[in-house]
Amino acid sequence: MREVLIITNPKTVKVLSDPTRFQILKLLRERPMSVNELSDLLGKDRTTVYRHIKALEAEGLVEEIDTEGNERIYARTARMFLIKAEPDESIEEFRQSYLQVEAERIVMILEKSGFQIKDREALKALIKEVLNTIELRSQPVIKRISDANIELTEIELFHLLNMLVFFQSCELCDHAKRVKDLISF
Amino acid sequence: MREVLIITNPKTVKVLSDPTRFQILKLLRERPMSVNELSDLLGKDRTTVYRHIKALEAEGLVEEIDTEGNERIYARTARMFLIKAEPDESIEEFRQSYLQVEAERIVMILEKSGFQIKDREALKALIKEVLNTIELRSQPVIKRISDANIELTEIELFHLLNMLVFFQSCELCDHAKRVKDLISF
Repeated sequence: MREVLIITNPKTVKVLSDPTRFQILKLLRERPMSVNELSDLLGKDRTTVYRHIKALEAEGLVEEIDTEGNERIYARTARMFLIKAEPDESIEEFRQSYLQVEAERIVMILEKSGFQIKDREALKALIKEVLNTIELRSQPVIKRISDANIELTEIELFHLLNMLVFFQSCELCDHAKRVKDLISF
Repeated sequence: MREVLIITNPKTVKVLSDPTRFQILKLLRERPMSVNELSDLLGKDRTTVYRHIKALEAEGLVEEIDTEGNERIYARTARMFLIKAEPDESIEEFRQSYLQVEAERIVMILEKSGFQIKDREALKALIKEVLNTIELRSQPVIKRISDANIELTEIELFHLLNMLVFFQSCELCDHAKRVKDLISF
């Protein structure tokens, strides 16, 4: 299992965006499992889980790694899936919703760390806008890295994503000023 | 085991910077192990490995999670350790050497992805300088987040680190121009 898989294909993102499939991938982070185990843990019938597993397998997100008795054991193909979708109408709603969740988490982390936020809703909206801008602007570089199919470690991915934000520093300077105005450091 | 532990204490970084301890932590990423297993895999005697394990345990990097027979089983306390050390003379050499390694990896990833680099050595040096600037400037915020002891997921950590680079956009704009001049996009 590789450490990181960068997902840019809108079709793959679409498959991933289903809540049950998301849960299956989350469970498989713990360890490889059979359809039976997954269906017990999810409280869903075997046929449904099997169908989801097959959809995930077709997109290269899970793979059969073993059989135990007559049960097939499935694993994730990477420990971390990084979703950096090419803009596409079919997944725009999902993309907007995860940007929203991410913006909310960032604000929450800043608050929990004791930073004073002047206007929470304004900050969330602004951070979401920034995340969107960064994502769209880094897309062409991310796609080339993803297409080159280089095996990245998580730490390498961290640095690389940081670099992609850094590359856009000049364009992001005004946004940064506005965000920093809303936080007391 | 938590997902992420941010390490800012120079003493902890010092303990981590020993190559054998680094290898022990790498092996424990696969699964929890006993001192015997570790000493076999490392080709080092039990007493040495035991001493390293105790040093790592004292810094909260590994913990005893089980016993099997009369063997204690040790695990990492987090799946990912993010080193963001406070500047300190005792670890400056280690810090410079990991920034160097990271800068080299970033250049390598860009090259493997098919980007033309105009002057490799100049780019490495510049990226190392940028990584250093980013690390030093984000240190106060990182330290607050680390001290707040919030359990972050890896994805949250990604976004947070990206935000810290973003916060410095205005100050990094000139650097970004210089770096982009050395890469053909």
